[in-house]
Amino acid sequence: MVSSSLRLPSLTSLLFPATTRYPATLRRTLCLRNRPLSGFATAPSGTASPETKSSEVDRLRSDRAVTPRSQDFNAWYLDVIASAELADYGPVRGTMVIRPYGYAIWEAIQDYLNVKFKETGHSNMYFPQFIPYSFIEKEASHVEGFSPELALVTVGGGKELEEKLVVRPTSETIVNHMFTQWIHSYRDLPLMINQWANVTRWEMRTKPFIRTLEFLWQEGHTAHATPEEAEKEAKQMIEIYTRFAFEQTAIPVIPGRKSKLETFAGADITYTIEAMMGDRKALQAGTSHNLGQNFSRAFGTQFADENGERQHVWQTSWAVSTRFVGGIIMTHGDDTGLMLPPKIAPIQVVIVPIWKKDTEKTGVLSAASSVKEALQTAGVRVKLDDTDQRTPGWKFNFWEMKGIPLRIEIGPRDVSSNSVVVSRRDIPGKAGKVFGISMEPSTLVAYVKEKLDEIQTSLLEKALSFRDSNIVDVNSYAELKDAISSGKWARGPWSASDADEQRVKEETGATIRCFPFEQTQGTKTCLMTGNPAEEVAIFAKSY
Amino acid sequence: MVSSSLRLPSLTSLLFPATTRYPATLRRTLCLRNRPLSGFATAPSGTASPETKSSEVDRLRSDRAVTPRSQDFNAWYLDVIASAELADYGPVRGTMVIRPYGYAIWEAIQDYLNVKFKETGHSNMYFPQFIPYSFIEKEASHVEGFSPELALVTVGGGKELEEKLVVRPTSETIVNHMFTQWIHSYRDLPLMINQWANVTRWEMRTKPFIRTLEFLWQEGHTAHATPEEAEKEAKQMIEIYTRFAFEQTAIPVIPGRKSKLETFAGADITYTIEAMMGDRKALQAGTSHNLGQNFSRAFGTQFADENGERQHVWQTSWAVSTRFVGGIIMTHGDDTGLMLPPKIAPIQVVIVPIWKKDTEKTGVLSAASSVKEALQTAGVRVKLDDTDQRTPGWKFNFWEMKGIPLRIEIGPRDVSSNSVVVSRRDIPGKAGKVFGISMEPSTLVAYVKEKLDEIQTSLLEKALSFRDSNIVDVNSYAELKDAISSGKWARGPWSASDADEQRVKEETGATIRCFPFEQTQGTKTCLMTGNPAEEVAIFAKSY
Repeated sequence: MVSSSLRLPSLTSLLFPATTRYPATLRRTLCLRNRPLSGFATAPSGTASPETKSSEVDRLRSDRAVTPRSQDFNAWYLDVIASAELADYGPVRGTMVIRPYGYAIWEAIQDYLNVKFKETGHSNMYFPQFIPYSFIEKEASHVEGFSPELALVTVGGGKELEEKLVVRPTSETIVNHMFTQWIHSYRDLPLMINQWANVTRWEMRTKPFIRTLEFLWQEGHTAHATPEEAEKEAKQMIEIYTRFAFEQTAIPVIPGRKSKLETFAGADITYTIEAMMGDRKALQAGTSHNLGQNFSRAFGTQFADENGERQHVWQTSWAVSTRFVGGIIMTHGDDTGLMLPPKIAPIQVVIVPIWKKDTEKTGVLSAASSVKEALQTAGVRVKLDDTDQRTPGWKFNFWEMKGIPLRIEIGPRDVSSNSVVVSRRDIPGKAGKVFGISMEPSTLVAYVKEKLDEIQTSLLEKALSFRDSNIVDVNSYAELKDAISSGKWARGPWSASDADEQRVKEETGATIRCFPFEQTQGTKTCLMTGNPAEEVAIFAKSY
Repeated sequence: MVSSSLRLPSLTSLLFPATTRYPATLRRTLCLRNRPLSGFATAPSGTASPETKSSEVDRLRSDRAVTPRSQDFNAWYLDVIASAELADYGPVRGTMVIRPYGYAIWEAIQDYLNVKFKETGHSNMYFPQFIPYSFIEKEASHVEGFSPELALVTVGGGKELEEKLVVRPTSETIVNHMFTQWIHSYRDLPLMINQWANVTRWEMRTKPFIRTLEFLWQEGHTAHATPEEAEKEAKQMIEIYTRFAFEQTAIPVIPGRKSKLETFAGADITYTIEAMMGDRKALQAGTSHNLGQNFSRAFGTQFADENGERQHVWQTSWAVSTRFVGGIIMTHGDDTGLMLPPKIAPIQVVIVPIWKKDTEKTGVLSAASSVKEALQTAGVRVKLDDTDQRTPGWKFNFWEMKGIPLRIEIGPRDVSSNSVVVSRRDIPGKAGKVFGISMEPSTLVAYVKEKLDEIQTSLLEKALSFRDSNIVDVNSYAELKDAISSGKWARGPWSASDADEQRVKEETGATIRCFPFEQTQGTKTCLMTGNPAEEVAIFAKSY
């Protein structure tokens, strides 16, 4: 089942056992292919001549090499996405096609969160994506925040529409329009729903998974009778995201509160989880908003309380998106390609059978099938790569590029000794390779499960230590500037004005990522003003 | 888990134990609420005065009554959708909000089909919904079929776009655009993918679930090296849909081939499953297209075959949508409301505890919880309705309206005798009620599972006999006209021209629904022309 769900149709087409490396050209090719419609704005501009032969394009595209991460992080990121077949550019500038392997990661994210949402009392439903333009204008800060990014439908069924329609950038407005019809009394509250949907934001600078014109997400929307309940809900959901990030994706996010300037257009408070990518830029990986009564007042979403008095509801909304896939790539990937945490990996173990003579083949394949069967039965997501069109070495590289946590090799000698070789994706070369693991199902299954757990833990620890070694505690603006200019995050006491925050942004390129929930004790002095401060803030450059 | 997934937030708001029946007014109210944006085109036009008080609206909306099905099928359908809280109108004409209970049915459809698609080698992925207008024009019959129904984005990020974008009505064009980049050689084939997505078609006459401006569906797209493989795939998928309809939804669809006139715009052959609704109109419930080389030629989707020669791929596409939810409602529903086949029911069993005195309450609730626990552990989707805000009678009606297959009643006397009362939704009144079923978990679980199976079978048999008693074999145009005018389906030999088919449509309102796969033996004479005919066709009025 797992292997069929991961049948990668174009797998054989993109990666050939080429030995020459053309990373830059590969990227040019990627870009070239999208040239007529201009491709992603941040993709390097194409320099390959338009008459590049398609056979050459094929050859270039089929190269497995990626730009070294340390050399050019952005180029590395795009190379990994192309080579691991995660996504491709759509024909319209800034749009993305999510390919089966990238989509399988998104499905793993969905599977986990969907259960958590339901466990906490939310129901899935679906709202139309077309929103009357007038709705967007109803909440003042919301329209200010979103109007530059809107895609508008102006023609339908061959006719100019009387009112233009917004393709949803987010659904608070239409949700409130419907809530007014479903909420009458306190007995209708809390109303807690979620939808999995596509959203459109007309972004100028795009990057696959991180920022695209259209993306996939879930958006939760709730209405409550009291501000306390709404606050509790907003915090509960950021807590669910935090646990998801740590436990499933091995991304040690920092949960906290956004500054006023960075708060969602229409919210009273925005909670966020901030992740440090491999280039030390911050990625906002999920948000949960306490909307207060901003939308309920704009839309008149009221209920009769227990005394029969009409009150406006208190609301929240919260979302994570396909951006999370980008976060996983940029947290764990290395020069060899993608590296997936076992819990989120569509394939946890790949089995590569090795034989030279035809006489060896039957025994090796039969052993490999038994091993696959044993692991699958034990609930391990396993793929047996038994094609004879590729060499074992090619397969090793290919599945490493795909970030499969564990590889099991089975050759004729292993069959004789009834054992296998197990290699860890996260420990390169011989150090990560263990010989002579018994093929006996219960032994092997236990070993594999233990290793998968170890890898999961190890990826988190590595990311955690990377994160912590790149956060600098600062007590002055000079120290903050030093930290930022050396590429790190700065954490320091902050009680200065919005104008000061804006100045930091303009002068350093860094923004307040959050006031983290986890605060240091003791008296604090604002790094900017020297005034007393209640909290430390984290500053960083971000995606 | 199950019950939390089905927490129905606005459940308490819409249905109050009112006794007066206001079916027509209810419908007017539904319509009225959407008046500013005109609502669904086919909804009866509102006659309630605009100044209807909102308190009255609440009261009307909260009425549980539905128009009798026999009296006005369309009104009944809309009433059931409103009262069972399946869907609501969106603010834009012809759009629909799928409410949690309706969405849960869609999720059940998704869960089943998603597994089947993966088992048969398809991978999920995601294509952008914005398609350059020029793409749509590339396949001649495709543009002819779809251009009247397009929604166009003409403004993005505050600027008029150079090329207007089509909001996908279906994805063959963009899929082919991408396939040209992924398919190079025969080794890349077959390429078999699916996406779950929203689609937009600017329909003039809309009806919730059946035909809406935006709807949810899955669309499968495959590319093959030979026409035989494509044909096999197209047939495999209509077979999967057929089995799904019969086995899961208890809808005895008739699978077959569309006539040339009714074939999908861009396909060589369209296979369909046709379902007979309660009003005997046909519903096209799913289609699978053999696209031949129509799109691959238009887009240049080629591969190098084993001899190195460039060939165009052979393709299929296939889809079912949220329309299926409408089909379930209109196949099984009755005057009491929705009736769900157990296999697709989000809640299979509802437990209603009954007590009068507070002294009885603890014992009854404790027994009810144990029963719930036992059923849940056995994998039955069960809901315990233990609110004390509603009477048992109210709850009976409410859950019957929601179509829950089985109800378990537990009162003080049942607790004493360690037994329960079980009522079937599909057999009204006392005939469907069995007393004294032991509460002992293994006995009860076995009984419940057996009854659920019986209900599933019974619903299918009932629908099958209804269907078969409403299909008339005809051998002349006169007989066909008689059958159609009496509201039935006509089945007869057909080898006449497209013009004749068009004439039947104009004169009777019926179209060829399909040439069914299951054909009668023997020589046939075309009912229209008297010429030899190879096949019988089924004619019916349809949605």
